[in-house]
Amino acid sequence: MTYFNANIDAMTAYLPGEQPSAEQKVVKLNTNENPYPPSPAAVKVLRVLDMDLLRRYPTPVADAFRRTVADVLDVPPEWVLPGNGSDELIVMIARAAGGAGRDIAYPTPTFEYYLTQAHIQQAGPAEIPYDEDYNLPVEQLIAARAAVTFVASPNSPSGTAALLEQLERLAKGAAGLVVIDEAYVDFAEHNALDLARRYENVIVMRTLSKGYSLAGLRLGYAVANPAVIDALMKVKDIYNVGAVPAAVGAAAFADQEYVRRICGMVVASREKLAGELRELGWRVWPSQANFLLARPADGRAEAIYQSLKRRGILVRYFKGPRLADKLRITIGSDEQNQALVEAIRQGAQ
Amino acid sequence: MTYFNANIDAMTAYLPGEQPSAEQKVVKLNTNENPYPPSPAAVKVLRVLDMDLLRRYPTPVADAFRRTVADVLDVPPEWVLPGNGSDELIVMIARAAGGAGRDIAYPTPTFEYYLTQAHIQQAGPAEIPYDEDYNLPVEQLIAARAAVTFVASPNSPSGTAALLEQLERLAKGAAGLVVIDEAYVDFAEHNALDLARRYENVIVMRTLSKGYSLAGLRLGYAVANPAVIDALMKVKDIYNVGAVPAAVGAAAFADQEYVRRICGMVVASREKLAGELRELGWRVWPSQANFLLARPADGRAEAIYQSLKRRGILVRYFKGPRLADKLRITIGSDEQNQALVEAIRQGAQ
Repeated sequence: MTYFNANIDAMTAYLPGEQPSAEQKVVKLNTNENPYPPSPAAVKVLRVLDMDLLRRYPTPVADAFRRTVADVLDVPPEWVLPGNGSDELIVMIARAAGGAGRDIAYPTPTFEYYLTQAHIQQAGPAEIPYDEDYNLPVEQLIAARAAVTFVASPNSPSGTAALLEQLERLAKGAAGLVVIDEAYVDFAEHNALDLARRYENVIVMRTLSKGYSLAGLRLGYAVANPAVIDALMKVKDIYNVGAVPAAVGAAAFADQEYVRRICGMVVASREKLAGELRELGWRVWPSQANFLLARPADGRAEAIYQSLKRRGILVRYFKGPRLADKLRITIGSDEQNQALVEAIRQGAQ
Repeated sequence: MTYFNANIDAMTAYLPGEQPSAEQKVVKLNTNENPYPPSPAAVKVLRVLDMDLLRRYPTPVADAFRRTVADVLDVPPEWVLPGNGSDELIVMIARAAGGAGRDIAYPTPTFEYYLTQAHIQQAGPAEIPYDEDYNLPVEQLIAARAAVTFVASPNSPSGTAALLEQLERLAKGAAGLVVIDEAYVDFAEHNALDLARRYENVIVMRTLSKGYSLAGLRLGYAVANPAVIDALMKVKDIYNVGAVPAAVGAAAFADQEYVRRICGMVVASREKLAGELRELGWRVWPSQANFLLARPADGRAEAIYQSLKRRGILVRYFKGPRLADKLRITIGSDEQNQALVEAIRQGAQ
């Protein structure tokens, strides 16, 4: 006997990357965390946090964080919606706009959580394959006439970023919402924030998990015009962002100089690692994110993944179509990246 | 032009109680927070938290907290699902089991968020009125044949608790899931945890927001058999509970002695305040929670709410049917409760 909706019974849960316990000593290059610590300003806020902020309910829209984001990005606070990670923002959008007869479209391969949400909402997933170079399939996405189109830019697992003129063509032509998931934007050369300002159907989503080294805090935000934000507010949990993320996140976000510095270091390491893998004969896609999609010369990605794991180095392996011969490698510190390169040189391939 | 589902456009957002800023000096008796600080053990964990827990993603099921709950309640960890507050657990249940043709039932008046979720899921809300004494309308709830039946026990805004034998009759007779929302159980004389152990369709839900003085942390949990938990996991956000709530919540939950002590103080204050209001001629419903539903002698509740607010005392006023002549008053410290009684004596009525 089942107590659940048929689509829930039929689906499988999203499978996140492995999270070894804090005690396990591994070189962790599998879930795109930042190798550097969060801003000292953010740490300080946590250390001296007023305990009355824990005792009381938080403000429903994480006011301290919302105001800081609005200030830094120079948009009114009403244009900003904080979320319990950007995962929750994806859920809010899917719940508010996706459903039977209201498809959710996205180019593939990409973040598989969009498909998970389509399944939960009983929305048809409209999956449009990227070409080999990960150019955005704009015309096919427009033709899908979806209620929601998700574009991760930079995209995971490819690391590639969509061109702004392509995103703008999509915004103009799409029948529904266009959600630009900029989880990795802090490592990229351009961003699409201006499209959210100029197109009423565009939502730009970001997270503090990668650039700000705060994956454990769970904090993201969406930027869109107030009519869109107000609709999303209806499906938001009452107090979706706790007092700790609101206060710590505000301090981290205000410290833009620190974030630019550590992300600059990651970008430099990324280019170095990409060069070294190419020297070993690997194909490496041009990345604007804090990871690389890379194909070993012999395409035996799963064997290398297993071999690295035995040596205490975790990278991400996706079994799916077009990915089974590749690895997604998070950019660690130069020391971690060197450990990876050495392991590969010593025959992990 | 709209980009959203028709049911979303048609609905209004849930309206939470007022949250004055931390700087405003008010006697805050409107959102059922605990007047006492969280456990010193929990505070200490926050103060010394390893920052690597912020940098990295948390474990997907808040392992530290889950294990502690399982230990304290003597159930296997697979029976426990942590949530970003119990609000998120309500959402998971509604999303996994509610929908068109799959009604969501509950006795009224109660927590209005159940109705919000029915609207979002396009599930018919089956609202069964409580009688004047808030006896659980078991037979009518069974007859509704809903996919999900929510029973808040103790109930808000009445403070009354359902009898265990009534809840068991409901568990036996219900066609679908029976969710016993025990947000206020730490102030009550009995709980329904055993029904979750014995009936495969029963979920017991709790929160650390009230008894544990951690409303700002956002942490709750559900207890049910693993088949139910696994289904809910499919609709859970990937990393729904952050590293801070997982660690701080585990320490708070392990400190049961502290929680029993502060909740005992609240219960003593509740009985004292109830007596004083009755002396003033108010009708006060018997409460098992950390608040009182109370009807002023003349029924002019809204005028008293406004008058108290002008004096810096916030209580909760619901305009809805059966509630417009009553106030819901959170139990504060004895000093805060006395300020309330004095204001009423001095003519706030």
